[in-house]
Amino acid sequence: MIELKGKEYQQKYMPILKDKISKLDKQLGLAVIQVGNDEASNVYVKQKEKKALELGYKFVHKVFEEDVDNETVINYINELNNDDSIDGIIVQMPLPEQLDAALIQNSVNPLKDVDGLSYTNGGKLEQNHPSLIPCTPKGIMALLDEYNIDVEGKNVTVVGRSILVGKPTALLFTNRNATVTLCHSKTKDVKEHTKNADIVVVAVGIAGFLTEDMVKDGAVVVDVGISRIDGKLYGDVDFENVSKKVSYITPVPGGVGPMTVYELMNNVYEAYLLRNNL
Amino acid sequence: MIELKGKEYQQKYMPILKDKISKLDKQLGLAVIQVGNDEASNVYVKQKEKKALELGYKFVHKVFEEDVDNETVINYINELNNDDSIDGIIVQMPLPEQLDAALIQNSVNPLKDVDGLSYTNGGKLEQNHPSLIPCTPKGIMALLDEYNIDVEGKNVTVVGRSILVGKPTALLFTNRNATVTLCHSKTKDVKEHTKNADIVVVAVGIAGFLTEDMVKDGAVVVDVGISRIDGKLYGDVDFENVSKKVSYITPVPGGVGPMTVYELMNNVYEAYLLRNNL
Repeated sequence: MIELKGKEYQQKYMPILKDKISKLDKQLGLAVIQVGNDEASNVYVKQKEKKALELGYKFVHKVFEEDVDNETVINYINELNNDDSIDGIIVQMPLPEQLDAALIQNSVNPLKDVDGLSYTNGGKLEQNHPSLIPCTPKGIMALLDEYNIDVEGKNVTVVGRSILVGKPTALLFTNRNATVTLCHSKTKDVKEHTKNADIVVVAVGIAGFLTEDMVKDGAVVVDVGISRIDGKLYGDVDFENVSKKVSYITPVPGGVGPMTVYELMNNVYEAYLLRNNL
Repeated sequence: MIELKGKEYQQKYMPILKDKISKLDKQLGLAVIQVGNDEASNVYVKQKEKKALELGYKFVHKVFEEDVDNETVINYINELNNDDSIDGIIVQMPLPEQLDAALIQNSVNPLKDVDGLSYTNGGKLEQNHPSLIPCTPKGIMALLDEYNIDVEGKNVTVVGRSILVGKPTALLFTNRNATVTLCHSKTKDVKEHTKNADIVVVAVGIAGFLTEDMVKDGAVVVDVGISRIDGKLYGDVDFENVSKKVSYITPVPGGVGPMTVYELMNNVYEAYLLRNNL
């Protein structure tokens, strides 16, 4: 069994990205919009800020009060859309109830939409046209590529159909010529779909969801989940037992998580290239 | 075995649609843009014109010469986008090589994009937000609904991953809580994925592709293919033998085909409602 170490990938590729960026004649900029004071969001934004500064990005962190309205947020997004010093814009989720998340997300210029959550980038992914791809799915593919795990013609089962992870992951694997089955909370028997799969991606947010009996010998298992129980981090995979059976598996932490952060930074660079036709 | 008769559906629902349209205070309009003189395209456009006129739609058929450039087509699309008498715009595929199909398709106002092929509508479908959905997938769902075939929790295998049929069909079934497997030309063993499926949708364009041994007893089979051999029409399903085994099956012709035409007409009406916030 080989661990797919996203942490090591990040350590290897961040300097390479930094080198590419240093050759540009402009400082790249990332803006994060946050509403309210969600504990988890604070942590995620801090992580992003740290990596952005490491790369020498300009980093803008705008915090709105919990009771802000759509118009105020969208006006600010428009300022960022028109600001040439900003290459990537993130709206930190979740947003409070009174805001229209889809409307706000789609106010971001698709060419600066580094989370890949706009309709335009979703449609481009569906149609397999070049686009800004959501960071976690993109990171999963990059990690498999790094370990030379071939995807074409493989049977892939994705568990979880979120807009951020499950659906774009399924589309990305389909675009890479894998045969994909997409399971979710309404799937009658998830095991039926995972037990013969060559590659299983789990993104359900339930600690230890994927057990040993649900995967075949030699499968590749990608664990996107992260749950904190009594201060300890757990993935969606029963790592101790599943890891004995598979050929490759991502650990938690240190697997998919660092890939997501890396790909976000990479998307800022790619957004810059796309927007400037480079 | 029950045949899923799209022809009968069309005959039943066209008058209902006509009745709804007659209550509007405006004539609806559909525009079809065609480039060159492709034989099959001529037939498809004629079909659309016939149905549109039956409903009392204004019908505009614009034909450009084979060697037209992107700018000329896009300028014309912009005219239609700004023309309030036009509610739906179709660009008849395929387009000649010198044209940028994606650019042209995405020049259509997403609110008039009755083929559902723009990035915006693709992304909305992916995110399960209200949108103009491609006509064939929409027609398939409507036909299953008409026969009270429950989709939730079912295992669905879609064969073919085109932008027009396969991918949006897979997304639509996922949004309807089915567990979907999407097969295509790079799938190693299609039978492995069809033989246990509750519902099989085939859209590969190969006459008789889906054989009896590939489906389970009592399955529901939807045949999107249409091939003309020696003047006779064939679907992607070996109808004679598969039909003996399944619970429901669409015939060819008279199954999915009439649904696609109906849903196109329906999309013009829905586009009008969407664009006017009705």
